[in-house]
Amino acid sequence: MKVSARNAFRGRITAIQPGAVNAEVTLQTSGGDTLVAIVTEGSVKSLGLVVGKEVVALVKAPWVMVATQDAGLTFSARNQLAGQVSTLSKGAVNSEVGIALPGGTEVFAVITNEAVSELGLTPGKAASAIIKASHVILAVPA
Amino acid sequence: MKVSARNAFRGRITAIQPGAVNAEVTLQTSGGDTLVAIVTEGSVKSLGLVVGKEVVALVKAPWVMVATQDAGLTFSARNQLAGQVSTLSKGAVNSEVGIALPGGTEVFAVITNEAVSELGLTPGKAASAIIKASHVILAVPA
Amino acid sequence: MKVSARNAFRGRITAIQPGAVNAEVTLQTSGGDTLVAIVTEGSVKSLGLVVGKEVVALVKAPWVMVATQDAGLTFSARNQLAGQVSTLSKGAVNSEVGIALPGGTEVFAVITNEAVSELGLTPGKAASAIIKASHVILAVPA
Repeated sequence: MKVSARNAFRGRITAIQPGAVNAEVTLQTSGGDTLVAIVTEGSVKSLGLVVGKEVVALVKAPWVMVATQDAGLTFSARNQLAGQVSTLSKGAVNSEVGIALPGGTEVFAVITNEAVSELGLTPGKAASAIIKASHVILAVPA
Repeated sequence: MKVSARNAFRGRITAIQPGAVNAEVTLQTSGGDTLVAIVTEGSVKSLGLVVGKEVVALVKAPWVMVATQDAGLTFSARNQLAGQVSTLSKGAVNSEVGIALPGGTEVFAVITNEAVSELGLTPGKAASAIIKASHVILAVPA
Repeated sequence: MKVSARNAFRGRITAIQPGAVNAEVTLQTSGGDTLVAIVTEGSVKSLGLVVGKEVVALVKAPWVMVATQDAGLTFSARNQLAGQVSTLSKGAVNSEVGIALPGGTEVFAVITNEAVSELGLTPGKAASAIIKASHVILAVPA
């Protein structure tokens, strides 16, 4: 795929909840993971989004937060993808963290090195990728 | 707190404005600062958000813009937190800017070094953290 | 302008689509490019946004995705600004990509070096800047 988003999740739309300006679109990946995206009603029409349609959900890695099971918090973000840390690439200031989901999908987040230490992230550790529905861009194969 | 967001503001909900898909949630921090978050109606229900409830507002530092008083602009962003630059950590390309609010809260933004120069940011200088309501994730202590 | 957003597009409002919580605001830049922003109804009122009003659309570079013509995808993002790569500034992990639009506006995106390679971005290559409407902050000259 020729698009700069680090995360591209292929799936099928399972539900569309319409609104005046925005619509909430739910999709299920082939691996069985569920993702929710908020897009404008204008996009629902222009992309011809309907239940059953195949779509790709795009999320840039800096838009993904990471939480560990001992967070002691419940989040408003509609997308909370629980898995295990699969990869850790450390830069000068930021790290890219890969989280492997049970369905086989890998989600990538860019977070600060400080956060990696605070959360004690190491390969194999349980962690969740937290993604706000309004940060998901949907794409439809042309 | 075990979550990778650089900014975590504790407060209580003071108002909820419902919509078809999204709701606007206003909270006040213990320091007296006001923050507005846009979350889905689904999250309002699943988190049991009601006026008076204690919540944590999470914002990753790259989602925060910085403006100075001489910006000559009024912003659509619902959250415009005025304070003083408290810390400046310079990286190769980006800097992390801390802004101390009157109520005692510190807000962190990641912006380019170029922007730091253009805005003339130095410790003590008046500056505002600009945060779009749709970029705030709410969390509830479990 | 004294604000840390890398992208500041000046234009005039051509349409406002109201909603319960959010409104969709369309503006046209002096160069003839069209941008759509989702802001809260509260901001529409407080900024006095009406058709014909001059506004500035602000977008931080990390919120911009880049796609090439062979992406084979149609996107939900309301803003898809087609142009040509004008500048490429490579950092250790990320690159800043400038895309010149036909109307003369230049849009900047921060994406990973890996994405720059995958997309084969070089000056002169056709590319589109993809910006979600909810990631655009509107500002009004004071």
